[in-house]
Amino acid sequence: MVPLDLGRIQEILRIALDEDLGTGDVTSLATIPPQSLAVARYTTKQPLVVSGLPVVEHLALMVDSTLKFRYLSSDGDSVNEGVPLAELSGSARSILATERVTLNMLQRMCGIATQTSAFVRRVAGTKAKVIDTRKTVPGLRLLDKYAVACGGATNHRMGLYDAVLIKNNHLAFHSTLTETVNMARGSIAGTMKIEVEVSNLNQLEEAILAGADVVLLDNFSVELTRQAVAQSRGRVPLESSGGITLENIRGYAEAGVDRISVGALTHSVQAADIHLRVTPS
Amino acid sequence: MVPLDLGRIQEILRIALDEDLGTGDVTSLATIPPQSLAVARYTTKQPLVVSGLPVVEHLALMVDSTLKFRYLSSDGDSVNEGVPLAELSGSARSILATERVTLNMLQRMCGIATQTSAFVRRVAGTKAKVIDTRKTVPGLRLLDKYAVACGGATNHRMGLYDAVLIKNNHLAFHSTLTETVNMARGSIAGTMKIEVEVSNLNQLEEAILAGADVVLLDNFSVELTRQAVAQSRGRVPLESSGGITLENIRGYAEAGVDRISVGALTHSVQAADIHLRVTPS
Amino acid sequence: MVPLDLGRIQEILRIALDEDLGTGDVTSLATIPPQSLAVARYTTKQPLVVSGLPVVEHLALMVDSTLKFRYLSSDGDSVNEGVPLAELSGSARSILATERVTLNMLQRMCGIATQTSAFVRRVAGTKAKVIDTRKTVPGLRLLDKYAVACGGATNHRMGLYDAVLIKNNHLAFHSTLTETVNMARGSIAGTMKIEVEVSNLNQLEEAILAGADVVLLDNFSVELTRQAVAQSRGRVPLESSGGITLENIRGYAEAGVDRISVGALTHSVQAADIHLRVTPS
Amino acid sequence: MVPLDLGRIQEILRIALDEDLGTGDVTSLATIPPQSLAVARYTTKQPLVVSGLPVVEHLALMVDSTLKFRYLSSDGDSVNEGVPLAELSGSARSILATERVTLNMLQRMCGIATQTSAFVRRVAGTKAKVIDTRKTVPGLRLLDKYAVACGGATNHRMGLYDAVLIKNNHLAFHSTLTETVNMARGSIAGTMKIEVEVSNLNQLEEAILAGADVVLLDNFSVELTRQAVAQSRGRVPLESSGGITLENIRGYAEAGVDRISVGALTHSVQAADIHLRVTPS
Amino acid sequence: MVPLDLGRIQEILRIALDEDLGTGDVTSLATIPPQSLAVARYTTKQPLVVSGLPVVEHLALMVDSTLKFRYLSSDGDSVNEGVPLAELSGSARSILATERVTLNMLQRMCGIATQTSAFVRRVAGTKAKVIDTRKTVPGLRLLDKYAVACGGATNHRMGLYDAVLIKNNHLAFHSTLTETVNMARGSIAGTMKIEVEVSNLNQLEEAILAGADVVLLDNFSVELTRQAVAQSRGRVPLESSGGITLENIRGYAEAGVDRISVGALTHSVQAADIHLRVTPS
Amino acid sequence: MVPLDLGRIQEILRIALDEDLGTGDVTSLATIPPQSLAVARYTTKQPLVVSGLPVVEHLALMVDSTLKFRYLSSDGDSVNEGVPLAELSGSARSILATERVTLNMLQRMCGIATQTSAFVRRVAGTKAKVIDTRKTVPGLRLLDKYAVACGGATNHRMGLYDAVLIKNNHLAFHSTLTETVNMARGSIAGTMKIEVEVSNLNQLEEAILAGADVVLLDNFSVELTRQAVAQSRGRVPLESSGGITLENIRGYAEAGVDRISVGALTHSVQAADIHLRVTPS
Repeated sequence: MVPLDLGRIQEILRIALDEDLGTGDVTSLATIPPQSLAVARYTTKQPLVVSGLPVVEHLALMVDSTLKFRYLSSDGDSVNEGVPLAELSGSARSILATERVTLNMLQRMCGIATQTSAFVRRVAGTKAKVIDTRKTVPGLRLLDKYAVACGGATNHRMGLYDAVLIKNNHLAFHSTLTETVNMARGSIAGTMKIEVEVSNLNQLEEAILAGADVVLLDNFSVELTRQAVAQSRGRVPLESSGGITLENIRGYAEAGVDRISVGALTHSVQAADIHLRVTPS
Repeated sequence: MVPLDLGRIQEILRIALDEDLGTGDVTSLATIPPQSLAVARYTTKQPLVVSGLPVVEHLALMVDSTLKFRYLSSDGDSVNEGVPLAELSGSARSILATERVTLNMLQRMCGIATQTSAFVRRVAGTKAKVIDTRKTVPGLRLLDKYAVACGGATNHRMGLYDAVLIKNNHLAFHSTLTETVNMARGSIAGTMKIEVEVSNLNQLEEAILAGADVVLLDNFSVELTRQAVAQSRGRVPLESSGGITLENIRGYAEAGVDRISVGALTHSVQAADIHLRVTPS
Repeated sequence: MVPLDLGRIQEILRIALDEDLGTGDVTSLATIPPQSLAVARYTTKQPLVVSGLPVVEHLALMVDSTLKFRYLSSDGDSVNEGVPLAELSGSARSILATERVTLNMLQRMCGIATQTSAFVRRVAGTKAKVIDTRKTVPGLRLLDKYAVACGGATNHRMGLYDAVLIKNNHLAFHSTLTETVNMARGSIAGTMKIEVEVSNLNQLEEAILAGADVVLLDNFSVELTRQAVAQSRGRVPLESSGGITLENIRGYAEAGVDRISVGALTHSVQAADIHLRVTPS
Repeated sequence: MVPLDLGRIQEILRIALDEDLGTGDVTSLATIPPQSLAVARYTTKQPLVVSGLPVVEHLALMVDSTLKFRYLSSDGDSVNEGVPLAELSGSARSILATERVTLNMLQRMCGIATQTSAFVRRVAGTKAKVIDTRKTVPGLRLLDKYAVACGGATNHRMGLYDAVLIKNNHLAFHSTLTETVNMARGSIAGTMKIEVEVSNLNQLEEAILAGADVVLLDNFSVELTRQAVAQSRGRVPLESSGGITLENIRGYAEAGVDRISVGALTHSVQAADIHLRVTPS
Repeated sequence: MVPLDLGRIQEILRIALDEDLGTGDVTSLATIPPQSLAVARYTTKQPLVVSGLPVVEHLALMVDSTLKFRYLSSDGDSVNEGVPLAELSGSARSILATERVTLNMLQRMCGIATQTSAFVRRVAGTKAKVIDTRKTVPGLRLLDKYAVACGGATNHRMGLYDAVLIKNNHLAFHSTLTETVNMARGSIAGTMKIEVEVSNLNQLEEAILAGADVVLLDNFSVELTRQAVAQSRGRVPLESSGGITLENIRGYAEAGVDRISVGALTHSVQAADIHLRVTPS
Repeated sequence: MVPLDLGRIQEILRIALDEDLGTGDVTSLATIPPQSLAVARYTTKQPLVVSGLPVVEHLALMVDSTLKFRYLSSDGDSVNEGVPLAELSGSARSILATERVTLNMLQRMCGIATQTSAFVRRVAGTKAKVIDTRKTVPGLRLLDKYAVACGGATNHRMGLYDAVLIKNNHLAFHSTLTETVNMARGSIAGTMKIEVEVSNLNQLEEAILAGADVVLLDNFSVELTRQAVAQSRGRVPLESSGGITLENIRGYAEAGVDRISVGALTHSVQAADIHLRVTPS
């Protein structure tokens, strides 16, 4: 599982706190005495794969550096319903100030990890890796992708800046796919691979001959994917993409591709059911 | 429909662009000639309620202020599959640079508006208003809530700072609900209402007598909600909350409450299916 | 007294330090040896109500986290001339770097609290609460309002976003006050009260019948205020506003209003006289 | 009059708008139709010296770049009661959104300029220049100092970084004033003058002999100031500072000093009375 | 030549202006009348390769959006001494405010491009590409690398995030190079190549067998480089790195490597001699 | 040596880290186990004057506050080849993440200090001080100037805001130099000196008579400089500027000027050769 560098996401965490706290939590300030202490536990209300605990800890300490955070599980763990994931203790006002933001974050991240894990289990025993896409929620790219990794899948490129992926929209400005690939090779850093998206078997052959490092089979049926695998004869890694669901992913994996990218891992997330119970102490 | 003040969300839009563009779109820079022009259309691939077009326009102009954006529909419209929502024209590189970020935003916002609209239709003919919660994606509070408004529902408080909502977690630090309400009233601004969350009919009565301005019925069954409405005799507006689904919302509405809050409007969003077709011009 | 969340004012504190320190305190760097230590005391040179000590502590630690700050009094205290409020010790250079910014802040905040306290004492024994306005110094809204709270008054709304106040400028766009109130009620969150500003007794009646939650009597004389109180018969809380001074506030309070808002609490502040004496140690 | 570089104060203006607008002006959004237009005039309700109109224009355009701002007077003008200073026209919602922030800024700045002008008139006919101090409101240093310049006085240093001023607090770390001055001269840039604060005539002599470029007479009486002027015989420019009021400033000026610094210009400001009348158009 | 996305470098440009302008250009404000106009020309005082004109234009417009900038040459051009590169016209104060920052930037960028061009010419006729490193000035990575591209060389990775380069420091934590490469391949995105740095011919062989996509020959002599080329037999692209100078680069190129990385392109830059002559107009 | 206030350079340090780390160091994350520890030493590979160790420490702790930094030398020290300057220990991943950014900074700063020291040694025994200019790398003004101070020279003004320097470009807008100086004196703060740049002996005389506090001899030959010194007879400090090199600086110093400014100290920097060796521990 790829680690998360919390230093890279400070700005979005601050915005998340600011948008909820604004000029302060009027209810707690008005009803909780300043010295009140509390203990709070994040507890699952469904089976899930854990993701986001270090983010929760970090958010809590941003609000109040005197809070104590105790891990009762680890990111990547598969846990049942009713399991305490972590415990937060200290100032009651501070705990209540962090409640909603930390839950919103944790529920989304566990939701992503849990769904990803289901996809990964479906392809068990094949050589196919499940990978994610750039279809993440604006502002949460790193967190969404980290949650995918917690669920057992592999990250694709982080953004437009760290990989070359030539799609139809790029080909449209050139007479041939070969010309496009050659033009790209001429200016990019030698450390970058060139991935090319193809729509049919002819394009697949052209991409291979043009020297593509990876080929993405865009919206191929399972049957067509099988033909593509046969035709490519291992000359290039193949990636299936487009319309992949829990129902059909096994078919693609068994067709023999190397990777399968799934936008739904991050663009349509079911928040995991997690509860925070706060007890005065 | 509540308007959206784009000036209030500049920071998150910039982050969204930064995380995708990073040091630049290496593929387009390497394969699209700088003078190339294109036209692109955001087109629906499912029936949906539109939300987010001004955000898309703003994002596109942030990337390149010479792009032209043309509205072909308006936020709040209900449209069918295959309908063009907007058109973007100008530099091909700039259009491709905005493609994923604008789609990610538009698909989420239309997804929220569409789902919200389904909830609103279920309570048609009753006096109940559908309202949202603070269970939004970190960083997107204003956008999520605006999308809810596009779907025909009403916004609840924006954050912890603009309304008082006394919950179990606050009551736990006091001997009685009445004492908690009185303490709150003593320090908050006179412009704020006090909403109190109750778990049973006794608490409901105590809240009304303590002078709560609104009462939230937390996880009441439809039957218990009916009793609460009867007992309160219009002395205070009532809000149902907790476990509301498309299946059961009509029951709560017919029980006679004034408002029904639905976390799922924003915490578990199905991205709407929208396509961007780019054509050289 | 409403607590102050220092996390909410980081940006303005940083700007305040930056504008004074710029690229560094050339005098201290040139004349104070780096290892020099000092002790400094903030001492009153007039009787005053204390406000701002946690802000002073925070500013000092932002400049140098190794400084030690000791409270010798508390925000909200009424103290005489010649009283030490707090002590700062550690690096002489760091103490001198913070001197002017901390004094500027403390003198303004104590000035506000002291003047507020005078207004509050004038209405003692009546039911009227003294409240503040949005006439604060740009950038210091939260600090100005916190200082008002230290002086014993109550805060009105924080900004345009957390309360509805319908004024002449809004009515001017509608044919009737009733229409304006109804339009507002249709779109705002159910947690917000509606306050309406009225200019005469007819408008007062219309506002009450339209369901205003609070009514602001704009520039009413004391005599007219008495009539307004009589006419409203407790149907709605009343707020006096406009031209309130130390001389006339008692008259308004005795007329029977619930709240009196005073712009001068924050728009015209006399800095309290406080001294920082620095001693090498 | 020193010009104001608006580019240098963007951050504080944005904060000022943010703290008032927050997530949006709920009243205007709820009661003013989006297409409504209005005209608004900033009009004086007292005689005053104008300062801050370019800031008002800039704030208004930050909120809505389609607003039109028309100058009806200029910064530095002395105007009577009832005079329109400027006109703002365009979207009614946008005008109302800027009303309070622009008035707060304009009233403070005109208040400073007006008070400064009174001090300047008191020393007319003498060679003394009135100068300001660093006793400004945190965050508004540049604006406060610009308003002082509009009032006809001269700015002293902007902060700790752009001038050397050796005070008692620095002398306390050295055995002699001469040693302190020499130490400073050894390390500062050759473009900076050295100003030294003295408490008595002996120190004055030592400062002159040590080569101070300017001497500040700290809390000298008018009589002692006369003696200092006689003793210095023009060898160095002299500055009076400490406890200067409208009542006693003429005495210091006639004693023959070159400059008189007045903290009250900025630390205790009476907001000027200015009104914004908004008319639908 | 790779294009520069100015939107990606806004922050460093703002800092560059802020550090020079601070609270304003006191000399110009004090000596140039506000309405004065001027024309200024950036003119070469040595032969050079142009780089940075769009950055100069952008900086100038950030200071004053009414300035007019006219290109008299283009980035990438080779020009002689005495050639005007661009012309700036408009407010004299604004032009003087931008003079030093724009010259500092332009002189550095042209210096890099010019030096790069010399390296590129030395390898003409061989297959070797000259590439840059991460040895750039802190904060100017994108600009330094863009200037390298203007000089005709190719960019290597932008940072630690967009490519894998396994060096001695990584190998030190593993028993074999093969193990290290395998571990890397297991977790990185499939779009990334793996480059491995080797110190001798044995490591070269191990790297090739382990499946490295590129091999970096660290501090190899020209003779050893020749042997490496022979041994690798085209199985993998080879990069020379370490101690490359104008004197020895041809030797490496003729040895047959594919790429040669040169730290000196950016870590030791001779500013190009460019003059800005300002004429009142 | 002028001290460095690290609080003033936080933003550029963060940018420097961000541009290198981006979304994370993919190589270390993929090949170094998270618990691995290491020790690293910054060691010289040439004789040099040290500058920047506190910046290296600060950068390292920004990346990981648990790293330990140990000083083995001090800024300002002259050291030989092969000398360890500092030691960094702790998480191997964190150390590798800081390697390039800290080396880039340290190599530049030591390069500046070393070159500056060479210039300073050339003028030993004369009264001339070596001073720097504003020809620094954009964004690094404070660090470049601090490195100059480490090398034994004196800083000139920091920017356009903290000193007055009247150049040809200002004179061009006036009929006489005297008029320009008088205009400047009328509006600047009394704490600022006025420096005037002159091109010949006539202008020198006019500048002295106009009361310039310092005169800059722009591009004077050594012979002409001698004449200027003779003519000025100590009436004003003189500064030589323009075309100063290691070869000719002694001539200027012996001609008798007070200061010599050298742009090459910072605009054309040879990075010092320093190595970071990382050892697992």
